[in-house]
Amino acid sequence: MNAGSSSVKWKLFESTTEEVVAKGLVERINMPGSIFEVAYGAKKYAENVDNLSYERAASMIFEKLKDLKIIAQLTEIDGIGHRVVAGGQLFRHAVKITEDKLQQLKKLSDFAPLHNPTEIEYIEIMQKALPMIPQYAVFDSQFFTDLPEMNAIYSIPYEYTQKFGIRRYGEHGISHDYISKRAAKLLKKPLSSLKMVTLHLGSGASVAAEKDGKAFDTSMGFTPLTGLTMGTRAGDVDPSVIPYLMKKLDLTVEETLEMLNTKSGLLGVSGISPDMRDYAKQKDDPRVQLTVDIFINRIVKYVGSYFAELGGIDVLVFAGGIGENNVKLRSQVIAKLAALGMEIDPQLNTAGKEGVISSSASKTKIMLVPTNEELSMVRQIKEILD
Amino acid sequence: MNAGSSSVKWKLFESTTEEVVAKGLVERINMPGSIFEVAYGAKKYAENVDNLSYERAASMIFEKLKDLKIIAQLTEIDGIGHRVVAGGQLFRHAVKITEDKLQQLKKLSDFAPLHNPTEIEYIEIMQKALPMIPQYAVFDSQFFTDLPEMNAIYSIPYEYTQKFGIRRYGEHGISHDYISKRAAKLLKKPLSSLKMVTLHLGSGASVAAEKDGKAFDTSMGFTPLTGLTMGTRAGDVDPSVIPYLMKKLDLTVEETLEMLNTKSGLLGVSGISPDMRDYAKQKDDPRVQLTVDIFINRIVKYVGSYFAELGGIDVLVFAGGIGENNVKLRSQVIAKLAALGMEIDPQLNTAGKEGVISSSASKTKIMLVPTNEELSMVRQIKEILD
Repeated sequence: MNAGSSSVKWKLFESTTEEVVAKGLVERINMPGSIFEVAYGAKKYAENVDNLSYERAASMIFEKLKDLKIIAQLTEIDGIGHRVVAGGQLFRHAVKITEDKLQQLKKLSDFAPLHNPTEIEYIEIMQKALPMIPQYAVFDSQFFTDLPEMNAIYSIPYEYTQKFGIRRYGEHGISHDYISKRAAKLLKKPLSSLKMVTLHLGSGASVAAEKDGKAFDTSMGFTPLTGLTMGTRAGDVDPSVIPYLMKKLDLTVEETLEMLNTKSGLLGVSGISPDMRDYAKQKDDPRVQLTVDIFINRIVKYVGSYFAELGGIDVLVFAGGIGENNVKLRSQVIAKLAALGMEIDPQLNTAGKEGVISSSASKTKIMLVPTNEELSMVRQIKEILD
Repeated sequence: MNAGSSSVKWKLFESTTEEVVAKGLVERINMPGSIFEVAYGAKKYAENVDNLSYERAASMIFEKLKDLKIIAQLTEIDGIGHRVVAGGQLFRHAVKITEDKLQQLKKLSDFAPLHNPTEIEYIEIMQKALPMIPQYAVFDSQFFTDLPEMNAIYSIPYEYTQKFGIRRYGEHGISHDYISKRAAKLLKKPLSSLKMVTLHLGSGASVAAEKDGKAFDTSMGFTPLTGLTMGTRAGDVDPSVIPYLMKKLDLTVEETLEMLNTKSGLLGVSGISPDMRDYAKQKDDPRVQLTVDIFINRIVKYVGSYFAELGGIDVLVFAGGIGENNVKLRSQVIAKLAALGMEIDPQLNTAGKEGVISSSASKTKIMLVPTNEELSMVRQIKEILD
């Protein structure tokens, strides 16, 4: 289960074979024209309902699994896994949800105010709907819990770092974990032998550096606001901008941060859309060009900075909606990284298949690895399944 | 003139020969035990006065120039130049101060709230003390006024970027301008032919990238808070930390930013001092080690990011108090940059003379160039002197 502010995505896995038995999406929750979809085998089921609530969406998913004869009875489900953005420093591994764990999770909402509360609400709804099935939480931060201290903390008074748990928690850890392991497997090399940089480029976007088989650095920070320019999030910005905007726009600090999270990024700079696919018609607009330049240049700068601190990069991986599907963007990014010895193979890049897309001359293996956060979650849950 | 929050540094130049005739320092202004010093030729003059005001300090400087027979009369002074941190987008070159200009300067104080108001006060005091001598302002931001738009703006809604002038103004521009030009001169190459990264490492610290003879990027932001970890400034930090700290410490947003500016950085992480020279006795303390690791790693990451966006670096320059005097730090930074083809020459590094300090195998010329902000100011003022 992957619950967002107005949507739920889910996949049903046969955990032994890792086969996806069915998958579904509920969009526009609590809005007119809610969309409920299920895909199973070659078949599809779709229904429109107005103002579908989270509770009703949860019930419908399991009713339809039975109605559509995807499963015979609910007890066939061994467990339900939930993606949770912020696990703080408390949660270093996937956990089975208990009342205690739920209370601890609630205390972490400060670290992901836009994500955690919805996720917790959804866990509670599921517990009520299906009390007999164990629920599990998998954390998007856990891949980064043991970042080297020098990259984890901010240069603020150390007592506050310690007392208040202010540090870089990262995000997209489930994805960076999956794509780094998958890339190593495709190259038939142990992950621990590779210096790797993974790019998860979607509407949220982040870069991570891996070394000795573990996360070494990441662009996301205390919250998922910082780092790369994202669909609606500003990424890195001078905090001094906040009181200045508060004064000019007569906003509270929370409203100002909300604006940096939801009205900034590609949407804010372009004034058009958080989705670069919507720029096709206006590609000669200088502001659209500026937006794309900023997006690319921030990726280039992060890759350069991780190249330096890792002492070179053996493997650079593209993933996420933009990373997996935008051929031109991949070639633009790699063209800018020529000074680091990277070179793309235009044919492999255009083909867009999982695997290496760099030329034989490239010093770094550049790879395309479609991410699979749900499979990664299932694998983590299997390890602790009752 | 270089006025800080509790100090004034000055140098008197013979502008034709660029010779320093005298220089001085007033410290602990408006505090018990104010220190007033003048050095001229091989001689020194020092005096302790309690609670010396800015007004009295200004008068004393000019009285002593006459008393000590450094000049015969004040009219020998052709002009007085003031360093001003923030010139916004209004001031792209040094200017002669007029009533109009002073009003415009006052409006820019939002961009450097810790610096501009003091500097403006000092200009006004000097105008009253010496109305017959023209005053000039030289801006620490002007070197960065024409940064490429993609590096100048933040990914916030573009209307606010335009309406409120929110952008990366940079700092230490007088220094980066001087050291980049001086490095090119020492190499006997036109600056416009060199891709250069300049490190100004003092109690304030910043990195700048130069290309085509102009600034291309810099680590300082909207205000001088961001970028590298500095003596007391946090450098880059997730803005979401602000409301969290406000709540935990019951602070206003302004107080929180004040803390990030004055109690963070090397001081905040080490808990000992903003000056790394004070760590000698505690060098085995893990927090001291962490502080130094963070300082070095942020430099390494910025150099890597600029290496990537410039498409390689021909020249890397160290300057500023730490950059010019800390032999070990220079060798630690360059050791971490080996993957970028950089290598230091240990003997040249230890000798610490102005010029190249890299080995002949280094792909990038690494240089030590003592900065000279006052000389740079004099040169800029000479161009517009009445």
